[in-house]
Amino acid sequence: MTDTIQVHPVAQTDFPAWKTLWDGYNAFYGRHHETALPLEITEMTWSRFFDAYEPMHALVAESAGELIGLVHFLFHRSTIQVGPSCYLQALFTAGTARGKGVGRKLINEVYLRSKNMGVERVYWHTHETNTTAMQLYDKVADKSGFVVYRKPL
Amino acid sequence: MTDTIQVHPVAQTDFPAWKTLWDGYNAFYGRHHETALPLEITEMTWSRFFDAYEPMHALVAESAGELIGLVHFLFHRSTIQVGPSCYLQALFTAGTARGKGVGRKLINEVYLRSKNMGVERVYWHTHETNTTAMQLYDKVADKSGFVVYRKPL
Amino acid sequence: MTDTIQVHPVAQTDFPAWKTLWDGYNAFYGRHHETALPLEITEMTWSRFFDAYEPMHALVAESAGELIGLVHFLFHRSTIQVGPSCYLQALFTAGTARGKGVGRKLINEVYLRSKNMGVERVYWHTHETNTTAMQLYDKVADKSGFVVYRKPL
Amino acid sequence: MTDTIQVHPVAQTDFPAWKTLWDGYNAFYGRHHETALPLEITEMTWSRFFDAYEPMHALVAESAGELIGLVHFLFHRSTIQVGPSCYLQALFTAGTARGKGVGRKLINEVYLRSKNMGVERVYWHTHETNTTAMQLYDKVADKSGFVVYRKPL
Repeated sequence: MTDTIQVHPVAQTDFPAWKTLWDGYNAFYGRHHETALPLEITEMTWSRFFDAYEPMHALVAESAGELIGLVHFLFHRSTIQVGPSCYLQALFTAGTARGKGVGRKLINEVYLRSKNMGVERVYWHTHETNTTAMQLYDKVADKSGFVVYRKPL
Repeated sequence: MTDTIQVHPVAQTDFPAWKTLWDGYNAFYGRHHETALPLEITEMTWSRFFDAYEPMHALVAESAGELIGLVHFLFHRSTIQVGPSCYLQALFTAGTARGKGVGRKLINEVYLRSKNMGVERVYWHTHETNTTAMQLYDKVADKSGFVVYRKPL
Repeated sequence: MTDTIQVHPVAQTDFPAWKTLWDGYNAFYGRHHETALPLEITEMTWSRFFDAYEPMHALVAESAGELIGLVHFLFHRSTIQVGPSCYLQALFTAGTARGKGVGRKLINEVYLRSKNMGVERVYWHTHETNTTAMQLYDKVADKSGFVVYRKPL
Repeated sequence: MTDTIQVHPVAQTDFPAWKTLWDGYNAFYGRHHETALPLEITEMTWSRFFDAYEPMHALVAESAGELIGLVHFLFHRSTIQVGPSCYLQALFTAGTARGKGVGRKLINEVYLRSKNMGVERVYWHTHETNTTAMQLYDKVADKSGFVVYRKPL
């Protein structure tokens, strides 16, 4: 099954199909209906994937001509490395395509592309209650023991 | 006591005093002796604080002419915001200056400077066992419930 | 006269006064009426001046509470330097404030701020027919002998 | 002849062959012997080509297994565009491979890659006495009438 899944960078023409996945991702984190991510932000983020100056990227998983998963990632500096870090900010698989290794395939492609570009570490955040996702994450990465504090300004 | 503490960006001449704090910070995370952060990385990081192209910054807390604390932070994009995020990557207070509000003062200055530059969110990682630091963090930010996965490449 | 001119970074509240100068600058290069710079671009550029992630900056000259000049500059890498270059992309003095050293003051402030941030070279483009501007430029910089080729995509 | 020339991004293993071309480029601009570009800068520039965070790129032209040309380019913001500009900072063809369309092929590849990444304009600087290069440049781009002023800091 996995063999028929292709992972590639998003193209401009992928917008509608990507948007469906992106909405699904946001809904999972409670951003839907009145709390939906403003369209202005989605459009800005989309434009940044195609902006040579922005180190922000999106890959999609495709199967039988349909987009079934996405991963977004960006590169930034670290004070304890010479090379950049990769922050994998979103990973999502369509509900109908779960359990087929899509997420793992997307993560592996991020690893591969990052490694080829001098990145020393990939990291992401997941909610401590998201045990389903952690079943995969525990296989492909290290649970660091670090927790995230944040402050909206 | 807090009133006599000044927070300001590091200057080139602060290197030796900053380096002592930086070594203290790294030692806390087990990077010392044979596992010390390579000097090459420290020098690169230091140079980035003074590189107009790198959105990486360092502030220091000074009291009675001595550096007693540091905070490092950098800005990067987010896929769910138009404005940037601020990643506060290191906070450290000299052992002799603890309990005087130095850390809080440094964090507040990061909030202030970030807010003035369009930043929408400040975040950082702390180890789940670092209960001392969390006493402060729980007062100035939100424990998000997110945990950090990472993969060295 | 020069002593009463203050140069400082633009603030959000400067928008209307800055916009008047910016329109004057664009008109000088033929971007007005039907060829005017789209407002969308002006708003994006303005937002970038206040975006911590974008190494793009604006200074204004103020005299008697009025903005009388602007300079825009941005930092980018160079393949023949370790530190960044500064591209001074726009310099403009209000028609009523010419001949009072405003332009020179703005350029000098760009030099000062750039030097403090590790910049190794400031450069700009001016049209070969702009002899008025060159009277100043020949005093504060070197005419390099290089000409600009460009290709719209 | 042109058909046998392949243009591709540099790979880590290209360093020695790229270095020979880079030295040739620098010598053309008088940077050789005692005025040679310091090796430290060459190494930093090389590392940036492979740094996911740096929008700086290098392509090479290859023929019969040999590198015969290079082009370096980087992306930066512009105050009069939403999308980035591309600054083509270096173009060089080995002495033995001149007159075969290598330079044009390299420039065209920069155009193609830039256009696909939202770039609105490619530009470069050439010396006003470099009439040989201008024979090509006049065919593939516009001589803008702008000249370059610069100030070392």
